[in-house]
Amino acid sequence: MSRRKLLGTAGLGALAAGVAGAGAGYAAADTSPPPVAADPHALPIPFEGVHQAGIVTPAQDRLYFVALDLTTEDRDSLIALLKQWTAAARQMTQGNDVGEMGAVSGSPYSPPEDTGEALGLPPSGLTITIGFGRGMFVDAKGRPRFGLDGKLPDLLADLPPFVGDRLDPALCGGDLAIQACANDPQIAVHAIRNLVRIAFGRATVRYSQMGFGRTSSTSSAQVTARNLFGFKDGTANIKVEQKKDVDDFVWVHEQDGPDWLVGGSYLVTRKIDMRIEIWDRESLEGQEASIGRAKGSGGPLSGGDEFAAIDLAAKGDDGEPAIAERSHVRLAHPDVNHGAKLLRRGYNFVDGSNGLGQLSAGLFFIAYQRDPVQQFVQIQRSLAGSTRDLLNEYIVHVGSGLFACPPGVGRDGYWGDKLFA
Amino acid sequence: MSRRKLLGTAGLGALAAGVAGAGAGYAAADTSPPPVAADPHALPIPFEGVHQAGIVTPAQDRLYFVALDLTTEDRDSLIALLKQWTAAARQMTQGNDVGEMGAVSGSPYSPPEDTGEALGLPPSGLTITIGFGRGMFVDAKGRPRFGLDGKLPDLLADLPPFVGDRLDPALCGGDLAIQACANDPQIAVHAIRNLVRIAFGRATVRYSQMGFGRTSSTSSAQVTARNLFGFKDGTANIKVEQKKDVDDFVWVHEQDGPDWLVGGSYLVTRKIDMRIEIWDRESLEGQEASIGRAKGSGGPLSGGDEFAAIDLAAKGDDGEPAIAERSHVRLAHPDVNHGAKLLRRGYNFVDGSNGLGQLSAGLFFIAYQRDPVQQFVQIQRSLAGSTRDLLNEYIVHVGSGLFACPPGVGRDGYWGDKLFA
Repeated sequence: MSRRKLLGTAGLGALAAGVAGAGAGYAAADTSPPPVAADPHALPIPFEGVHQAGIVTPAQDRLYFVALDLTTEDRDSLIALLKQWTAAARQMTQGNDVGEMGAVSGSPYSPPEDTGEALGLPPSGLTITIGFGRGMFVDAKGRPRFGLDGKLPDLLADLPPFVGDRLDPALCGGDLAIQACANDPQIAVHAIRNLVRIAFGRATVRYSQMGFGRTSSTSSAQVTARNLFGFKDGTANIKVEQKKDVDDFVWVHEQDGPDWLVGGSYLVTRKIDMRIEIWDRESLEGQEASIGRAKGSGGPLSGGDEFAAIDLAAKGDDGEPAIAERSHVRLAHPDVNHGAKLLRRGYNFVDGSNGLGQLSAGLFFIAYQRDPVQQFVQIQRSLAGSTRDLLNEYIVHVGSGLFACPPGVGRDGYWGDKLFA
Repeated sequence: MSRRKLLGTAGLGALAAGVAGAGAGYAAADTSPPPVAADPHALPIPFEGVHQAGIVTPAQDRLYFVALDLTTEDRDSLIALLKQWTAAARQMTQGNDVGEMGAVSGSPYSPPEDTGEALGLPPSGLTITIGFGRGMFVDAKGRPRFGLDGKLPDLLADLPPFVGDRLDPALCGGDLAIQACANDPQIAVHAIRNLVRIAFGRATVRYSQMGFGRTSSTSSAQVTARNLFGFKDGTANIKVEQKKDVDDFVWVHEQDGPDWLVGGSYLVTRKIDMRIEIWDRESLEGQEASIGRAKGSGGPLSGGDEFAAIDLAAKGDDGEPAIAERSHVRLAHPDVNHGAKLLRRGYNFVDGSNGLGQLSAGLFFIAYQRDPVQQFVQIQRSLAGSTRDLLNEYIVHVGSGLFACPPGVGRDGYWGDKLFA
């Protein structure tokens, strides 16, 4: 019994073609994005490369994200975990089982090494991306963990508090984070579940989050999706095709340091609850003014279609700014944030309903960047507070995380190998 | 601005073709299932028909389910709500907006009638199915509500307690339930959100549940999907192509009564938490013995492939029953339940993690039936309890619901029109 075998001949053919394409893609991983497959489920994304997959990879439709705390204090144990995780991720992203399904070491009494719910399913564009939190480097008192003295990046400090934050500590932080993106939620869940299982006795789950609708295209080939406010989200996102922006704003460079993080990126997560019921009672005019864009086309209120440049100086017939002073797009715009841009790849979530009968729903915001202080913190300081972004009447940040994502791994490498070298 | 318009010419063409097919399907709604479309997102499912869609409809991949409590006691208000819901469902299932997106009654100060997150998206096979709970007919003291004296079906009693139940009252019951199934979760969420919004002041949400992987095929054309135990689930499910079983086990007949429910069905929901971490430590042999089937192929342990008949009398080499006495498939089998069968259309769920770092995950069980006492209750009594189904070591029922789903609506009808006639 194995996943590949259960896919049957047709599936194997499709996979083989996909894997061949992936191999070609690997050699050129740094310069061209993986192709958007005609069948989003068949697509395997190369695991290895200069950068981790799942950052500039064209955003898949589904997310399962987990933050973990390390329960071991042993360096070798952590390294072993990272090696085992890497091996498992290498298999799962290519549509294989984590390990043997049946008799391990010849014993029918062993648990299967793979939990099985992806049996018969193709890779569905799965990417698995890891990030290291400050808590992996130092304990609460600032003492080094795992012998990582001097390895903590200066920028991996706690995010500052922002006006209006209502953070739940259970939804914040984590020593490690893993982002699984795929075009089938069963595939993303399978990946995280098996990685968590492998970590038994060494790391425990702090929180996890399902996301069902990407809100940011990371490739110009993708249609901009809508968030739960009903607006296109991520129109002005950095796209993988914008090579200069990707280089300037996403990847950590040699001059930035530390060495082990070069080619990596900083990941900021924010769980943003939306007050859906209040938003839904706002007029279309009010909604559009809060955002600064038309709800239908996504075009800026200064005129033009979705991708028209935002004209912050444009005036309406009444002489007031067409893009309101406190609109979201104005306050998040690079022109008012010292040029800062982010690569976002957030997801909508619905966690059911709260005790008041309201939707527990919103946006699980994910952003990758070269420098969290000059990028996320700069922009969020522009937005936060009841006298700033008009959207703050309808949203509240309840979770937060900052992680340093190491560069990609080579043929024989493992996640973080440069950190522990 | 409208959903259809934003789909563009290509989208409209695909939709028009789909709608034409749907029209043909409507005339024959009672005898043939809707075709499985090549593109699961393009497919519109006919809303009108002898039976409600979303019961024998080939199961879509995603679920959003909501249970509501009525806050009005006024019969006319309830009827108006059901009419407004029907009108909205009629629109949304065909890929249209609920209503005007912009200036309602000519005023830019009105909220949009549609929340907008489905703008530009096709119908994705959306079905919306309503069920009436006991609480709609009688209050907690058994006094009639909404003038529905004498209309309460005898079988719409509370489900009996089962051994091992750990029901959370907040996840049980409801005066009404709405099941939205689609191949895109954004479409299912959009549907429920807009119906809840329409109900403002008349009904509030009791609980809601996202489901991401169908666990039961309701058509022979569908591959059996896997639940979070990693096993194929629903192999022996009633399929729409089995016309006699559908007729015998799903629809309420004239001789069953009440009149208003003929052509309808009883819906049982059970939120079943899976103790994933414990299951994952069980051996493959133990897992397969608990289920009574092979994990890979899904074939019964008495031999044969997935769809081989289960031989409850078969013995293994050790002389013990090949299908263990306490295995799930034996205790759920029609032969030990007076022939009872169910039409299931359950979904996997992951609600994140609990405070112990374990997955909050499992199966949102959904079953349709002609008679809940002779079908669900009979089978669940066979299964429940620590001396019965071996799976009970790994599962716990935390939510429960029973609803009477009225028959389908005609061109000018509304959900429940026969009940209020």
